[in-house]
Amino acid sequence: MTDMKRFMDEDFLLSSETAKHLYHDIAEGMPIIDYHCHLDPREIFEDRQFENITQVWLGGDHYKWRLMRSAGVEEEYITGNASDREKFQKWAETLSLAIGNPLYHWSHLELRRYFGYEGILNGDTAQEVWDLCNEKLKNMTARSLIVDSGVKCLCTTDDPADSLEWHQKIAADPGFSVKVLPSFRPDKALGIEKADYTDYLQRLGGIGSFAELTGKLKERLAFFVSLGCRVSDHGMEAVPFAPVTAEEAEAIFARRLSGILPSAQEAKQFRTALLLELGREYHRLGIVMQLHFGVIRDNSQRVFRALGPDAGIDSIGDAPSVKELAAFLNALDETGELPKTILYSLNPNDNAALVTVAGAFQNSEAVCKVQHGSAWWFNDHKAGMQEQLRTLAADGFLAGSVGMLTDSRSFLSYTRHEYFRRILCDLVGTWVENGEYPRDEKRSGRS
Amino acid sequence: MTDMKRFMDEDFLLSSETAKHLYHDIAEGMPIIDYHCHLDPREIFEDRQFENITQVWLGGDHYKWRLMRSAGVEEEYITGNASDREKFQKWAETLSLAIGNPLYHWSHLELRRYFGYEGILNGDTAQEVWDLCNEKLKNMTARSLIVDSGVKCLCTTDDPADSLEWHQKIAADPGFSVKVLPSFRPDKALGIEKADYTDYLQRLGGIGSFAELTGKLKERLAFFVSLGCRVSDHGMEAVPFAPVTAEEAEAIFARRLSGILPSAQEAKQFRTALLLELGREYHRLGIVMQLHFGVIRDNSQRVFRALGPDAGIDSIGDAPSVKELAAFLNALDETGELPKTILYSLNPNDNAALVTVAGAFQNSEAVCKVQHGSAWWFNDHKAGMQEQLRTLAADGFLAGSVGMLTDSRSFLSYTRHEYFRRILCDLVGTWVENGEYPRDEKRSGRS
Amino acid sequence: MTDMKRFMDEDFLLSSETAKHLYHDIAEGMPIIDYHCHLDPREIFEDRQFENITQVWLGGDHYKWRLMRSAGVEEEYITGNASDREKFQKWAETLSLAIGNPLYHWSHLELRRYFGYEGILNGDTAQEVWDLCNEKLKNMTARSLIVDSGVKCLCTTDDPADSLEWHQKIAADPGFSVKVLPSFRPDKALGIEKADYTDYLQRLGGIGSFAELTGKLKERLAFFVSLGCRVSDHGMEAVPFAPVTAEEAEAIFARRLSGILPSAQEAKQFRTALLLELGREYHRLGIVMQLHFGVIRDNSQRVFRALGPDAGIDSIGDAPSVKELAAFLNALDETGELPKTILYSLNPNDNAALVTVAGAFQNSEAVCKVQHGSAWWFNDHKAGMQEQLRTLAADGFLAGSVGMLTDSRSFLSYTRHEYFRRILCDLVGTWVENGEYPRDEKRSGRS
Repeated sequence: MTDMKRFMDEDFLLSSETAKHLYHDIAEGMPIIDYHCHLDPREIFEDRQFENITQVWLGGDHYKWRLMRSAGVEEEYITGNASDREKFQKWAETLSLAIGNPLYHWSHLELRRYFGYEGILNGDTAQEVWDLCNEKLKNMTARSLIVDSGVKCLCTTDDPADSLEWHQKIAADPGFSVKVLPSFRPDKALGIEKADYTDYLQRLGGIGSFAELTGKLKERLAFFVSLGCRVSDHGMEAVPFAPVTAEEAEAIFARRLSGILPSAQEAKQFRTALLLELGREYHRLGIVMQLHFGVIRDNSQRVFRALGPDAGIDSIGDAPSVKELAAFLNALDETGELPKTILYSLNPNDNAALVTVAGAFQNSEAVCKVQHGSAWWFNDHKAGMQEQLRTLAADGFLAGSVGMLTDSRSFLSYTRHEYFRRILCDLVGTWVENGEYPRDEKRSGRS
Repeated sequence: MTDMKRFMDEDFLLSSETAKHLYHDIAEGMPIIDYHCHLDPREIFEDRQFENITQVWLGGDHYKWRLMRSAGVEEEYITGNASDREKFQKWAETLSLAIGNPLYHWSHLELRRYFGYEGILNGDTAQEVWDLCNEKLKNMTARSLIVDSGVKCLCTTDDPADSLEWHQKIAADPGFSVKVLPSFRPDKALGIEKADYTDYLQRLGGIGSFAELTGKLKERLAFFVSLGCRVSDHGMEAVPFAPVTAEEAEAIFARRLSGILPSAQEAKQFRTALLLELGREYHRLGIVMQLHFGVIRDNSQRVFRALGPDAGIDSIGDAPSVKELAAFLNALDETGELPKTILYSLNPNDNAALVTVAGAFQNSEAVCKVQHGSAWWFNDHKAGMQEQLRTLAADGFLAGSVGMLTDSRSFLSYTRHEYFRRILCDLVGTWVENGEYPRDEKRSGRS
Repeated sequence: MTDMKRFMDEDFLLSSETAKHLYHDIAEGMPIIDYHCHLDPREIFEDRQFENITQVWLGGDHYKWRLMRSAGVEEEYITGNASDREKFQKWAETLSLAIGNPLYHWSHLELRRYFGYEGILNGDTAQEVWDLCNEKLKNMTARSLIVDSGVKCLCTTDDPADSLEWHQKIAADPGFSVKVLPSFRPDKALGIEKADYTDYLQRLGGIGSFAELTGKLKERLAFFVSLGCRVSDHGMEAVPFAPVTAEEAEAIFARRLSGILPSAQEAKQFRTALLLELGREYHRLGIVMQLHFGVIRDNSQRVFRALGPDAGIDSIGDAPSVKELAAFLNALDETGELPKTILYSLNPNDNAALVTVAGAFQNSEAVCKVQHGSAWWFNDHKAGMQEQLRTLAADGFLAGSVGMLTDSRSFLSYTRHEYFRRILCDLVGTWVENGEYPRDEKRSGRS
């Protein structure tokens, strides 16, 4: 057993000398550009502090909620009225059994990097971890966590109706040099089938027609861009493609304004029309279009009514998605107006298909103008990341990938970049050590 | 080549010291609870003996039939009139070429564990294996095989119309202490589109309405429970969800009684209605609901007409299944009547989606109240089991899994539990040796 | 780092001693039967020579075009008017970054085997590689490349309307002993929904009815068979199954002749009817039926209009395919007229399902009469091949596989057989060294 590695030591996930070299000498120290997260800009501006580790870890992390429910923990200790210390105890007991789950790794990476705790969290050590973390949290703030993590730029996720007040304040603050940029996520504007859709139109400023809607969204996008916005984001079950004329889109919209909910097909037509308008505008402005799908939201309506969205009750979906996606991209490509695009599916089965769809729409506007995004959410575990990277390399062009995102609501999640980098370096290191790629591409060109 | 392992030695499938420790010191000696099999309770009660190894191995094992057909063997030597010795010869010749197939491993595990044969079965050794096995079979019976395999409890698969006569006799027999429990599998009651459906209703005792049907099934379930039944089982192409009112269900049923076959949509509505009724009753009685799907039955109708079901002519199906499944589970969850549920798909592509669907319906009624079941049938090979375990661990909670089943018709199949345990121990051992999980979670909490 | 393998040395992809033995002592020297390629028989007859490496490598290789576009290379340097030397430079620069892509391996295998270049191709070495290859190309011809690659037989892909003039000339040429056989690919005859369908019927010789169409195709097939044809080939998005009577097929065809395009359902019915007719004829004549699907063609219509088909703009498709495929095979099997069949899907998710569908239709007409074909196109990379082989072994009968094909338009692509053989030998070697299959099946039968 002399070959057994210590638990999560400095060479965690690095199985070869080349992998260790790539990680420690190159990747480890690189800055973080977190182009897709869900941090609250207000908390960044106000430099929020946290009373205890439960607030940071369990306050809004539906990954952890799911795991605790799976372990049979009562809801009282998850999102209910139990004390923060009690909740932490249940979490520690749950986590200690979560072999093979990325939360085991993420949590211990966070304990090591942010709190200097090198032990193992479980029911027995929960008290010492609680004490240690809470003591250290006194000297930590939202901003210090961001800066100490090596973040140079982060892109939050924002509704077109958002005032971006906090982004403006952060930008105006000379004491904080990290770029905190808004991202344009108009999901609510696309949700014509929702009961509260007309309320949302009010928030946007009173919209009387489809043309006014697209006009207003473009106006808001221009405002976002003025504050540094570089990316948009769209979440959906599947990318729609059911093209209609502008007149038909207006008619569907008018009926909705009059109180008549659209049929499933009409909703799809509306979304197609609006997404095409937005896609063209993204292209015009050089904004990246992120499309993510392959998910079913809010499966347990009982929990949804109690806790709202993002409560740990979503799942992977398996509806076929490629044909309409490809047709949608083609519709933008026809006129040379396909923007830079990142495709994500929560269903890992889609990896190979999405890499090849992206490959069908490349051109010299950018390296990997259309690309398959990193494994995230249900897939950002070791095997999921390896599989995404391997598929991207085999059927696409790994070197052109924009890399990892956190998709996180937590200021401690930057260790997911470390996790990703270790896995990437290990994969590349393995290829090199297996003789599948030259050790030094530049220097060994002749031998 | 000093590192090469001997063929299927004591450390078969165990690639690390930790894996060997976990298997030999912990898993190997644990009892077997086989909660899902297809053994015949009458054969258990009557303590059946077998004349020869062909009767045990080839009598009803459609896995082996498929493989022989793939190898080009004539049907005469598979299910036809050739002698048992001739059939065994063809099987030995086929098996010897089946590299990478789990039947190669299962067969040799059975030869080693039950017959003490440490050699390799092929055309040349067929005669000595035939002689050895047949000699040993003289001292083996259904019961001795079960007891010697370490089985403490096994759950057979039974139709609601079954009298359970043999279960009662086994339970009343003081000479046999292994629990042999019935499981409730009402597939025939759900098969409203089948030509012989009304014959089946006669077997159930004369059913005049949908209400009578659900009443009768609940009555039979209560009887099953009185004999120790703990689990139900439902096999289908996909879990249906097309809810209708009780009146509509009655109308569909009444039309069927009058001789009119339902449309595909009506059959789906009927199944939805009946499954919801059953699901609620399972919850009330604490019965586990097993749902398995992702399969297409009886592909070759020509073979089906000759040999009937379970003839080795089924295949994996690829119809999208997640959305209706999730809606079905939600319908039971809405009223707090979702029973403990195990989801299986024969299509390994569904692994990640099913783990996440299960994760959306957890609560404190049980650890992993809804769970993704073990890899079986087309997936119970090494890679299939590894993948199921890895996905369950990464997206769910491996520690809460109920583990392996045989799904077998053979008294020799308990070595599949050994196969599963070796693969599980190897996976966990690899994680520990890679530093991805602490070696001794309990003891090493502080270092 | 003493264990690190040199880049692509003689033991490339061979990770164990057994693998090295299997490859170097057995597989390496075996002849190549390339039963599915897209070589031009005229170029073989005329013994074409190439002026430079760009003509060979980039002239028609849409795999390389895709990769260059992904790397952001301008179309001018891919399919445009840049000089061959300039194009080669861009390719060299692109390739050098393509870690994990099979083109990296294929290209370097070709450089080593055909040009004796042991270095690494990148922007810096492009000139020396250009000079070396072009010098060597002076002494290479289509025929010498085929012969030196160890090819004994190759099957081209030909339209039923093709005169097969060049096949006849090759067969009549005593100076070339490699068998160059035509394959029957009637995709155009099935493409009833295409605008130029009636033009195609003219090429076939003037067709006035569905019966005339099937008659003419059978006549052409007989001609193909007279020239050695052994296999047919069908490419489609999904295998159709919507059976109709002969009268309905005639009616759909008659409407098409009158200028009325069929509905999607009618086109499917037509294709079903014609494919069933062809399948029965293949069975009668002992012709293998290849069916490949799981692909979406010509995604970027803009590129398609500029460059035509096979321009690097196809992708994997994800429409469910198993149920209709199984029903189609069953329709032929019902009357004992299912020919030997090879199933390929471009979507790797289909691997397990297709292996099991094939397994449902086996009989003693042939070993693996229906089989899952080798990983190709989007899947012929290391992981894709491993996965196809592993699944075939686990759910089917690897020993009965007909093995690798090139599917290539290039005379240098035979190294893909080497790539496949190394991966196969490595997989088998790993199984043996892990103790999962005996080292010498024959000799070690008793120990």
